[in-house]
Amino acid sequence: MNKINIGLIGYGVVGQGLVKLVNKRRRYLRSKFQVEFIFKTVCDRSLDKKDKAPLETAKCTNDFREILNDPEIDVVVELIGGMNPAKTIIEEALKNKKDVITANKELIANCGKELFALAKAQRCHLYFESSVGGGMPIIQMITEGVAGNTFYKLYAIINGTCNFILTEMTKKDISFSQALEEAQKRGYAESNPTLDVSGMDSTHKLAILAYLAFGKFIPVKEIYTEGITHISHDDIEYAESMNLAIKLLAIAKRENDELEAHVYPTLIPKDHPLASINGVFNGVYLTANPLGDLLLSGEGAGAMSAASGVLSDLLNLASQGDDADFHRNIFSEGADLKVRPLDSIKTRFYLRFMCIDKPGVLAKLTGVLGEHEIGINSVSQRVHNRASAVPVIMLTDYTTEQNLRMALTKIQEFGDIIKSKPVAIRMENLT
Amino acid sequence: MNKINIGLIGYGVVGQGLVKLVNKRRRYLRSKFQVEFIFKTVCDRSLDKKDKAPLETAKCTNDFREILNDPEIDVVVELIGGMNPAKTIIEEALKNKKDVITANKELIANCGKELFALAKAQRCHLYFESSVGGGMPIIQMITEGVAGNTFYKLYAIINGTCNFILTEMTKKDISFSQALEEAQKRGYAESNPTLDVSGMDSTHKLAILAYLAFGKFIPVKEIYTEGITHISHDDIEYAESMNLAIKLLAIAKRENDELEAHVYPTLIPKDHPLASINGVFNGVYLTANPLGDLLLSGEGAGAMSAASGVLSDLLNLASQGDDADFHRNIFSEGADLKVRPLDSIKTRFYLRFMCIDKPGVLAKLTGVLGEHEIGINSVSQRVHNRASAVPVIMLTDYTTEQNLRMALTKIQEFGDIIKSKPVAIRMENLT
Repeated sequence: MNKINIGLIGYGVVGQGLVKLVNKRRRYLRSKFQVEFIFKTVCDRSLDKKDKAPLETAKCTNDFREILNDPEIDVVVELIGGMNPAKTIIEEALKNKKDVITANKELIANCGKELFALAKAQRCHLYFESSVGGGMPIIQMITEGVAGNTFYKLYAIINGTCNFILTEMTKKDISFSQALEEAQKRGYAESNPTLDVSGMDSTHKLAILAYLAFGKFIPVKEIYTEGITHISHDDIEYAESMNLAIKLLAIAKRENDELEAHVYPTLIPKDHPLASINGVFNGVYLTANPLGDLLLSGEGAGAMSAASGVLSDLLNLASQGDDADFHRNIFSEGADLKVRPLDSIKTRFYLRFMCIDKPGVLAKLTGVLGEHEIGINSVSQRVHNRASAVPVIMLTDYTTEQNLRMALTKIQEFGDIIKSKPVAIRMENLT
Repeated sequence: MNKINIGLIGYGVVGQGLVKLVNKRRRYLRSKFQVEFIFKTVCDRSLDKKDKAPLETAKCTNDFREILNDPEIDVVVELIGGMNPAKTIIEEALKNKKDVITANKELIANCGKELFALAKAQRCHLYFESSVGGGMPIIQMITEGVAGNTFYKLYAIINGTCNFILTEMTKKDISFSQALEEAQKRGYAESNPTLDVSGMDSTHKLAILAYLAFGKFIPVKEIYTEGITHISHDDIEYAESMNLAIKLLAIAKRENDELEAHVYPTLIPKDHPLASINGVFNGVYLTANPLGDLLLSGEGAGAMSAASGVLSDLLNLASQGDDADFHRNIFSEGADLKVRPLDSIKTRFYLRFMCIDKPGVLAKLTGVLGEHEIGINSVSQRVHNRASAVPVIMLTDYTTEQNLRMALTKIQEFGDIIKSKPVAIRMENLT
């Protein structure tokens, strides 16, 4: 029997889920994996307010150094999230030759490069499966499952909250704020949902996936990020009528020695497998050579999903020898890719203008688009009952981001005919 | 640099694909994985008819014992398929303390239990990722990616040929034989397609997946198997009109201490992610605890997909120490589950009867179904132009397989009103 002493730092919902899961599966883990996981010490700032019964004989503390300095602890599981003190904890754990498991996407996205270098130098394992997609094993899939492939494109739905909101808006004909409220009611969105709905959470996760797939850490600041707060029910209805779905996509593409990475709401064809990833499900669609296209989808949100990912990390750790060869592929950067700036990328756009209903408006809009060399593929205006503003919808041909931005800035200046900020949603055919 | 000497047995399309892939990626594999794969000896019965240039300095032979008895060879890659001599090769390789990689689904399905026991006793690795879903890493996902989960349900599209044929029939309004011809033209189906279209290939793969997910090898003979040759274009059209898709599903479910496993064409809801797995794509949908639902999909067919899976196996092997702990979870059977006989399972059915157009026919059919306690959920008869036989379509309520079989046997005896064998397709709501 392989006995592994765990120091658990962070006893929130995921930490509690992990302890319950390991307790419940103890017999199964012994018989199937010949492993015994022991929670030796658990550290949390507010342990007294939490259910300590599942911790059984574990030592409780609010000082994480009791874990970091305990030579009997083999692996540190960091589940407090955020940049600090999580970074200090992981660094000191590695310096003390302890293996580390973390679910901390923000930290890996921002400091993965130095943490991986430290782990490599210390010959320690650093696992982080739950940092992206919860327990859905996307990290293992990229780094081991299809190791040896080269990747070209990655399209990912990696924020369950946003995907739930967009799905609710589509299926129940409700507004963004109604759908957000429903998400909060069900515990899928925080009371402060900014990190999710702004797209930032997806950006952290994309930085990690893009590193694993393409071998380059793109600074989070350089990943253009747009959330879903401006998506109206009108947009979803128009999308449906064109057999398209709106998804918050995290996108990374490699072309020769250039890499691009962005997060934004995207119109995709309804018959693409990503379009049927609904609710809190996550989905990652990869194009690889020689394997071709690959999709992994699963429940990427929730405490038990994350706990499941940490347990997989623990089991993979338990099966490793003392030799850190296994994760060497994570520790090596790939080709030196340049990050392609958004401005130069060509995309097709869905545009929605809320206009006053007056002759000449359309001419003015199309005039400005024409000046910026933006071809228009289709235009539609909705039937209306003398509403103060009517939506005008256009689909453009391929155009650069820069041209579009300049055109929209100019159009916004027509305060007399444009009643609110134009909405632009990018389209991807995903091929 | 980790140097690994490979003995490759079988230089057909997958073997040739593997050699080309490794040659092409040699620099990448060195820099990212610090590994050098050397094809030391290649064995094939008809090497002289094949392109030997990619083999460079490899020794060529038609006697596999030259590989098995070579102490310098670390790993034997078996790509000849079939039961014999593949079984002898793998057994002798393991006895000679060589690690083994195989893509041989038939062999693992039938002899996995003894081969795993031998590998464990010899403390050797036995990898077989490409035996199911080509390079789509379903085996690693179940055994490592979500290790620690317990599984309840597995629905799998694991034969690219059948999925391609059903997709073509749906999208192009063509018959089974036209679609099969197209599949053969594109190289997706063998000139003798029996193993694929009979469902047997899926059955081999299901035996492997069910073992990995549920810990029990079900004898291939005990897996009820039905192919797709009896599916007509009419059936697909009816399915479409009910917002259903027909897929050849490999199904395994666990309920308490019972396990059921079958392969048959299945009607599934169009909005389920499996319904959008089209063409030669494979897809495996798993229900796990605590992770919930999980879908992996990818191009499961083709030489390069299989070669990609073998390369992943090689890389995973290279990252292991000499200690075979890692795959111990594959080597241990799970709970002692009983195999549930098909007869006792309750299912809903789609039924198609080709009847003569005469009063009283419907009464006769429904009478027999009623006698066997089969409730009818809906009936429809197609508009027709005095055709000699008209299709009558029924959807049943849940009924046992046994009752349905008895009813259909009786109905078939009505030679005067039933013009051909009734078609019964099972329905699954996949929840």
